[in-house]
Amino acid sequence: MADEVILLDFWLSMYGMRVKIALAEKGIEYDYKQEDLSNKSPLLLEANPIHKKIPVLIHNGKPVCESLIIVQYIDEVWNDKSPLLPSDPYQRAHARFWADFVDKKVSVVSRKLWTTKGEELEAGKNEFFETFKILEGELGDKPYFGGETFGFVDLSLVTFYSWFHAYEVFGNINIEAECPKIIAWAKRCLQKETVAKSLADQKKVYEALGQLRKIRGYE
Amino acid sequence: MADEVILLDFWLSMYGMRVKIALAEKGIEYDYKQEDLSNKSPLLLEANPIHKKIPVLIHNGKPVCESLIIVQYIDEVWNDKSPLLPSDPYQRAHARFWADFVDKKVSVVSRKLWTTKGEELEAGKNEFFETFKILEGELGDKPYFGGETFGFVDLSLVTFYSWFHAYEVFGNINIEAECPKIIAWAKRCLQKETVAKSLADQKKVYEALGQLRKIRGYE
Repeated sequence: MADEVILLDFWLSMYGMRVKIALAEKGIEYDYKQEDLSNKSPLLLEANPIHKKIPVLIHNGKPVCESLIIVQYIDEVWNDKSPLLPSDPYQRAHARFWADFVDKKVSVVSRKLWTTKGEELEAGKNEFFETFKILEGELGDKPYFGGETFGFVDLSLVTFYSWFHAYEVFGNINIEAECPKIIAWAKRCLQKETVAKSLADQKKVYEALGQLRKIRGYE
Repeated sequence: MADEVILLDFWLSMYGMRVKIALAEKGIEYDYKQEDLSNKSPLLLEANPIHKKIPVLIHNGKPVCESLIIVQYIDEVWNDKSPLLPSDPYQRAHARFWADFVDKKVSVVSRKLWTTKGEELEAGKNEFFETFKILEGELGDKPYFGGETFGFVDLSLVTFYSWFHAYEVFGNINIEAECPKIIAWAKRCLQKETVAKSLADQKKVYEALGQLRKIRGYE
């Protein structure tokens, strides 16, 4: 029997995009279900009763929640191709550390760029560049965070790239001027079809966030 | 050559206690270094330059940071006994989900019980019990979150038990009255020597937090 794989998602989510990349890397066919986040489906509420958040992967009827946990699950179940985490325990811990850093820091500092203004925005810009400079330091001269090949940390971070245009316009910043290595790395990742087809279009993200800013009074 | 294992820690930390339990479960000898958090050692700053936080495990000179990542590392390196994560990918994802829940929710709601007062404390109490009732639901009638055996989620949560007396006194709550299953589960975990010897004494935690409350003006 073929695996039944369903992804509950919302197209803007950088967390959902992570799962899309992982599924693409593994060559897994799946049923994509777009959620209306203002009117969540009974399926989503049943599959993730604790957080009620997308993305959720439902594999043969069993739900898996939280993007980095889903990606590790995918890597463990479909372990015959495109490993996302390294096999060495120390390298695995290292990859988990940096993916966790993305969740703890990048998520928080990025949000400020399109949801705040004035002094808070100015502080947000500084934090954003501090965070990405730390990431540039970790990347060093490697082509990918994973080394010679695209991996778990690359996948965790690159999905933020689809929001970069919005960050630049709303935050009035130029990311390439401050962090050229990050932009070069993101473009390198985007040469992979699995990434290119999984990331939301920067202009569409910008338009959607522009609407959200109006509705929520962030402008 | 024997492994050289060093744990940089501070005795009050429930995150450090997790690592102590994991090392005890695996029967690993290690060098315990107590950090002065107001004057962090060069070794800590070098081993964890990003977060500058304990616990850090240094294994043959290589540092691993963030407690849940350290525990997974220990489980992967010393995989010949006392598995902490299940071997089945779905069960692993399930265990990771609940350990992540502890980090995202329990950490936040517990903190309010000894750092806030008035309305904020009242809200904190409600959130604390809501969170632990969710955990009771997940525990169900199993002896451990891991099922028949003590595992990753048990280890992640049980270290908070050493702070329970402080939560009860400072928060003016009775945890057993509201969440008897959690208390019974914690006592079950404490029957394990690996847990009992790794957890800080509740009275000492209470005294230390009392001092901290004075210094920081939380009273």
